[in-house]
Amino acid sequence: MPEFLSLVSPEAALSFLFEHLVPVLSHEDTATEQALGKVTAEDILSSQDLPEFRRSTVDGYALMARDSHGASESLPAYLKLAGEVLMGTEPGFDLDDKECALIHTGGMLPSAADAVVMLEDTQVLDKGEIEIYRSVASGENLIEIGEDVPKGGTVIPKGTRLRPAEIGGLLALGITQIKTITPPKIGIISSGDEVIQPDQKPKPGEVRDINSYTLGALISELGAEAIHYGIIPDRPENLRETIQIGLRECDHLIVTAGSSASSRDLTADVMNELGDPGVLVHGVSIKPGKPTIFALAGEKVMIGLPGNPVSALVIAYILVKPIIEAYLGLENRKFAPSIPAKLTMNVPSQAGREDWIPVRLIEGENAVLQAEPIFGRSNLIFLLAKADGLVKIPSPTTGLEAGVVVSVRLF
Amino acid sequence: MPEFLSLVSPEAALSFLFEHLVPVLSHEDTATEQALGKVTAEDILSSQDLPEFRRSTVDGYALMARDSHGASESLPAYLKLAGEVLMGTEPGFDLDDKECALIHTGGMLPSAADAVVMLEDTQVLDKGEIEIYRSVASGENLIEIGEDVPKGGTVIPKGTRLRPAEIGGLLALGITQIKTITPPKIGIISSGDEVIQPDQKPKPGEVRDINSYTLGALISELGAEAIHYGIIPDRPENLRETIQIGLRECDHLIVTAGSSASSRDLTADVMNELGDPGVLVHGVSIKPGKPTIFALAGEKVMIGLPGNPVSALVIAYILVKPIIEAYLGLENRKFAPSIPAKLTMNVPSQAGREDWIPVRLIEGENAVLQAEPIFGRSNLIFLLAKADGLVKIPSPTTGLEAGVVVSVRLF
Repeated sequence: MPEFLSLVSPEAALSFLFEHLVPVLSHEDTATEQALGKVTAEDILSSQDLPEFRRSTVDGYALMARDSHGASESLPAYLKLAGEVLMGTEPGFDLDDKECALIHTGGMLPSAADAVVMLEDTQVLDKGEIEIYRSVASGENLIEIGEDVPKGGTVIPKGTRLRPAEIGGLLALGITQIKTITPPKIGIISSGDEVIQPDQKPKPGEVRDINSYTLGALISELGAEAIHYGIIPDRPENLRETIQIGLRECDHLIVTAGSSASSRDLTADVMNELGDPGVLVHGVSIKPGKPTIFALAGEKVMIGLPGNPVSALVIAYILVKPIIEAYLGLENRKFAPSIPAKLTMNVPSQAGREDWIPVRLIEGENAVLQAEPIFGRSNLIFLLAKADGLVKIPSPTTGLEAGVVVSVRLF
Repeated sequence: MPEFLSLVSPEAALSFLFEHLVPVLSHEDTATEQALGKVTAEDILSSQDLPEFRRSTVDGYALMARDSHGASESLPAYLKLAGEVLMGTEPGFDLDDKECALIHTGGMLPSAADAVVMLEDTQVLDKGEIEIYRSVASGENLIEIGEDVPKGGTVIPKGTRLRPAEIGGLLALGITQIKTITPPKIGIISSGDEVIQPDQKPKPGEVRDINSYTLGALISELGAEAIHYGIIPDRPENLRETIQIGLRECDHLIVTAGSSASSRDLTADVMNELGDPGVLVHGVSIKPGKPTIFALAGEKVMIGLPGNPVSALVIAYILVKPIIEAYLGLENRKFAPSIPAKLTMNVPSQAGREDWIPVRLIEGENAVLQAEPIFGRSNLIFLLAKADGLVKIPSPTTGLEAGVVVSVRLF
């Protein structure tokens, strides 16, 4: 009954898994408008220049820059008004020497114009003559053809998660359909004789299922699809049958064991039996989450998490998230928020094991953030509800001292 | 035609709006399981202790702590095995003096037990006798009744956005239904004679609509509901009619003007005509985004944004987001990621105006983050696609120097 885990570090556990496994991704067509949060399956190139015409960035007069040279309040230049460029249309005229055209922000410059002078630097005289008080340089107050994106350029690389700005950029180019990574299906199995559905009233000794829902929520948040297989009693035949169904229907499986050691060992046994090569990692030198299991059934990953809901969720953030992200095809990650903050108190730890502690962030003096550890026994789910993120205490150290700057990984 | 805006600071614009307006929120019943990202409409109290029974946090033997006092490897204590506590059940027995019970992680302690000794600190002798090598204190290796949450305690305050940990905590308490804030409906109207649908091919002088989609994506990301009213030409009667429909159907309206000054003025005129009290703010001392409009029609906010897609999206992050968050009922915000980083180059600015510049974050030496400004004319939407967040150059300064630490507001 005692556990003899051959512990490996969290990093080693992940690299060992990825050595045995190259993510196979599938993709699907998605309307760009609906693609928020999805991940691009290929480089997206521009089939056109953006903009396709020279646009004014101000309200003013389009002109040839040389005609404004030397102009000042005391010595204005005088130009003839050749016409007005209407929004959304080609100018129906061009400029001759010493001519200008009224133009609005976003308007298309007449071919001969190479600059725009702002309205506030001008004055209208009668007889269609415009007084110019300021000299402008060639190229001033306009956007050149292709200045935002040149034709043929890569606008969004493969493996990028799309945010509002990317959606807008794609639509500006008329790219209304794109290929995105198909979200992996991740099955969740809760095991444990003591575990009941949340809508039931626990009898003494029973606890409600939390893991199916915290993990399901995290999986959705990351952009994958959670498939629920409910609660399975700690019997090999039940676990075997459900894992078999899950492997058939899903890309990956997460099994949270009951909280007893026997339940965890059972999970590893069944994964070894059903998987080929089976269990790769059983036991990680991390707290919470030591009994974590990584196993493979062909190309499908089976992850065994501790039954303790806090351990399960912390390990999901630290170790499961990178696996899901690999299967989401994320290569071009935007900056993942990890924030430096001053630790407010000493945190002891055991050398040889990575500790992750929940912290709350507080605005300190001089805009220096403070990270306040939230202590409590690791089984308390509301510990995490009070926290903003996690702080790592590296494996070789025996703790961190109050006042040191730590990096807080936000939830 | 020249604009004469009475500019106010971004903070003043928001406070002025909120002085005239107290968010009226409605709420709805939501299944906790489906409530990820939603905001609580009331304080949620616990109707029970969590846990409801004393649980072991380890695999081992439950005992009376005093029976282990003085025990060591050289001088073990000897206890009689009274039985095993099965997972998910009440122990069917209690302990007498000098007795212990085999217990698994998560198991329910017999009434007389007040501590658990870990399995690795024990050895089984024959005849049901257990050798204990280590003294444990009363309360060691167990969770007390109500230690996670006491009965009647507030577990999640009103106005909290729910993350995976909160979902799990609520379900642990059997709270499967909660009241959440009904997401506000936010109408989006794009105006401008030069603006066409993204799936159309622009003729010279025309540009595709970007704002409807960047703003729609941001609104969804924040948890509100975007209602699209398409593209309206710059004619008062069209804008008037569409704003009237929008005010009837939505809680708030965002109108992005065409990029010309006349289009923006038209928006303000129509908002003044249809609203009571009408336009509160027209012009904010911020770059990009100077022509921003805040108007009220009774309890409904109308926001006029510049047509330039970069300005519109930056203003949406800086000024529209706080308004949407107020209407989502967010009071108990978890930490909003804003990251200190070293500016990599000088950024000039104009005093008397708040500048917001897009930056990319780069891991520098010694884990110091660097913020690299992304320069370009403000009309380039792919500027924002390259950026991780925005940096403020405060109003009184004339710029920031390379090497100063700035706070990056992440997208």
